[in-house]
Amino acid sequence: MTAYKKADFPVAKIRRFLEPGPIVLVSSAWRGRTNVMTMGWHTVMEFEPSMVGCCIFSDYTSGLIKRSKQCVINIPTVDMAGVVVGIGNSTGAEVDKFAKFELTAVRGAKVDAPLIGECYANFECRVIDASLVRKYHFFVLEVVKAHVAKAPKYPRTIHYRGDGVFMVSGRHVNLRRKFKPENL
Amino acid sequence: MTAYKKADFPVAKIRRFLEPGPIVLVSSAWRGRTNVMTMGWHTVMEFEPSMVGCCIFSDYTSGLIKRSKQCVINIPTVDMAGVVVGIGNSTGAEVDKFAKFELTAVRGAKVDAPLIGECYANFECRVIDASLVRKYHFFVLEVVKAHVAKAPKYPRTIHYRGDGVFMVSGRHVNLRRKFKPENL
Repeated sequence: MTAYKKADFPVAKIRRFLEPGPIVLVSSAWRGRTNVMTMGWHTVMEFEPSMVGCCIFSDYTSGLIKRSKQCVINIPTVDMAGVVVGIGNSTGAEVDKFAKFELTAVRGAKVDAPLIGECYANFECRVIDASLVRKYHFFVLEVVKAHVAKAPKYPRTIHYRGDGVFMVSGRHVNLRRKFKPENL
Repeated sequence: MTAYKKADFPVAKIRRFLEPGPIVLVSSAWRGRTNVMTMGWHTVMEFEPSMVGCCIFSDYTSGLIKRSKQCVINIPTVDMAGVVVGIGNSTGAEVDKFAKFELTAVRGAKVDAPLIGECYANFECRVIDASLVRKYHFFVLEVVKAHVAKAPKYPRTIHYRGDGVFMVSGRHVNLRRKFKPENL
């Protein structure tokens, strides 16, 4: 796995990495217990405050997040695909996934949940609306701090299609000249 | 633009196309007025019933959807990238986008909003929860009917990063053998 050197990144611009739809790893912590889960069901909701909505069905992670009202969204790259699957296969109620998958737990600046050092980006989040959690397992999060690798400019992410198949992010097309400036 | 031949597709399996995070086109209709908008802020929420959550900031589309309680999520492919940008640049309050962009309006089976014939897939949706619309512009939709191109198996979709840059979906990796069967 790659060890990325990271820098602070403006939270209002993280849509750049989340809107394309990568599988992410959600880390959480509560009273000394930590966990990591894979998540593909998330959406950007606002630039400023920086908001993300996501569905978390894992009872264990959901419990830690409900109690701590915090979590970290980590973006793994394609070199971590095997680890991503492994994390999805196991439950934090039984194993310490940081130890099992040799992940580096990095201390956050604003939340107690650990950042995953091997991921391309880490977004520290606080729960700001839990009104749809009971009905749909849907959390509304505010990203309060973002750490992003200094290079490459765009990560090679994996995007889940179900049935064990991942799409790997491909080439980029810049259509900036076709946009109305106010819509960029 | 490609004209796709489509077949009915199980609504419980549409995550295959939405979870990877493509830009989609949302078509809507109310009392003879129709519109199309681009949307990148969406998430799968459930398999069965098939649910999708999305943020719709466009006043015009939002009004049509609130009144009709329906819309269609259409998945464009990379050959439509210029059209996708053009749709984002204009407002349905002033122009008929189906006419302007030469899109084929196909009649749906369960909703009145038109399907876009040139898109790879069309998901007919009904609004099932509007409780977060006022606060976050967030609609919860149920996909009640899905139409998907018979080929190719996976579409070449575009994924927006902001600043006029799209990521084009890349190669596929099948890690099925690594998954616990119950997690596939």
